[in-house]
Amino acid sequence: MQDLKNKAPIGIFDSGIGGLTVAKAVIDALPNEDIIYFGDTARVPYGIKSEETVRAYALQITNFLLKHGVKMILIACNTVSASAKEEIIQASGDIPVLDVITAGTHNAVSDPNRRNIGVIGTLATVNSKAYVKAIHAHDPTVTVKQQACPLLVPLAEEGWIDNEVAIQTLHLYLDEFKDSGIQSLILGCTHYPLFKDVIPQILNGENVEIIDSADSIAMAAKEKLETLDLLNTSGGQFQCFVSDRPQRFHELAERFLGKELNGVEVVTLD
Amino acid sequence: MQDLKNKAPIGIFDSGIGGLTVAKAVIDALPNEDIIYFGDTARVPYGIKSEETVRAYALQITNFLLKHGVKMILIACNTVSASAKEEIIQASGDIPVLDVITAGTHNAVSDPNRRNIGVIGTLATVNSKAYVKAIHAHDPTVTVKQQACPLLVPLAEEGWIDNEVAIQTLHLYLDEFKDSGIQSLILGCTHYPLFKDVIPQILNGENVEIIDSADSIAMAAKEKLETLDLLNTSGGQFQCFVSDRPQRFHELAERFLGKELNGVEVVTLD
Repeated sequence: MQDLKNKAPIGIFDSGIGGLTVAKAVIDALPNEDIIYFGDTARVPYGIKSEETVRAYALQITNFLLKHGVKMILIACNTVSASAKEEIIQASGDIPVLDVITAGTHNAVSDPNRRNIGVIGTLATVNSKAYVKAIHAHDPTVTVKQQACPLLVPLAEEGWIDNEVAIQTLHLYLDEFKDSGIQSLILGCTHYPLFKDVIPQILNGENVEIIDSADSIAMAAKEKLETLDLLNTSGGQFQCFVSDRPQRFHELAERFLGKELNGVEVVTLD
Repeated sequence: MQDLKNKAPIGIFDSGIGGLTVAKAVIDALPNEDIIYFGDTARVPYGIKSEETVRAYALQITNFLLKHGVKMILIACNTVSASAKEEIIQASGDIPVLDVITAGTHNAVSDPNRRNIGVIGTLATVNSKAYVKAIHAHDPTVTVKQQACPLLVPLAEEGWIDNEVAIQTLHLYLDEFKDSGIQSLILGCTHYPLFKDVIPQILNGENVEIIDSADSIAMAAKEKLETLDLLNTSGGQFQCFVSDRPQRFHELAERFLGKELNGVEVVTLD
């Protein structure tokens, strides 16, 4: 018989609903886990906000998840991973905290032959140099080339993921990776997996491995729960909390989660 | 000698810094007025939020402006104009409140020969049908055709206002106005004046008058102050408050205001 801690849910949070791509990857990797997702839809996007504000919001959400008795916290938001990871770890005591930046980086540097890594993300993620620092903490001789792609989030939310505007935009952002010799490209934003099929054709001919941080953190969560002997064998519930129910919410959520989203609860944090 | 009320500032607010296009138009039209601008940069964008949330935020800002002794409030945000105008009027007592939707509409319907009017805006503005209702309140027989253009705000903020992506995007949004016979096109979002030079070439050949709601509300404010004998002859200060100082803030603010922005103060509302 499993004890109560195994049956506790995994907490996942993001600035909005983009982190549902992480929830989707976790559901696929760990179908017997209960999941509590929090999307701060009233205050999205975090990417344009100051670090102080992002930290304050992230700690409110962490407390919300801890009150719901989570056994693990997954930071699905790249901006929060870059700005507030240490504060969240501190606030969470002995509850393990994983974040998309560490997970994506770990995946990218796992092959020591990769000497040249590209990273795309929001302006905040790129300015924070969080992926660069994380990669260099592992090996300071690896070359990292970053590119901010601010328009990809609104394009994903408009559902324009492979039309002419999306292709042109991706060219404007990614063309400078051509001939740069990158071996891997980290998708450093939860919205970017939606462009996973189109990006290789933009970098045409280049043999670039695409690293999806949603898949990476799901794998890392599975390993961690196995190591700690905290796997659940009898769960599988998905509970979703948001701070506001924006327009087109269900349509968007479905696009990111890959299935219909039921039983969403709107809560106010303080 | 002017009395104290004449010397009081005009309050202008928006969900973010897009409303600085309105501030710019007001400064041009009324160079001797003191202006207090509030941009809710910590909580932008309003367009994806629920009406209840938008109303609550708008009332907080209204109270902030009233505490600063404004003699008039200009709602520069289309989303707020659509969702919270009545609440703001009620909260403001005898202080006149003007909004971009009423001003833009008034401008559009001022010529009775215009029987066919186009409106572009954010998803929230279009879904609220606020411009349609305002035009039909004046004359229910006028034909109004709306189009939501969610990508124009991020394009303006990226500074992509006339490159290939901007042109393609504008074509996707505006091509259906061709052959529709519209005589005027209302730019129903504070960011859209940045595309004012490109839009006519998208609607090529059509003799469409572009109605900029920023110019419209500035003209309405001038008329109102003249009528109420509340003009200031000795001011000209511009004071800017924001709820957060986002990345690239000064670059963006300058693009919208058309000049450098000095002395910005960050304040927390409650």
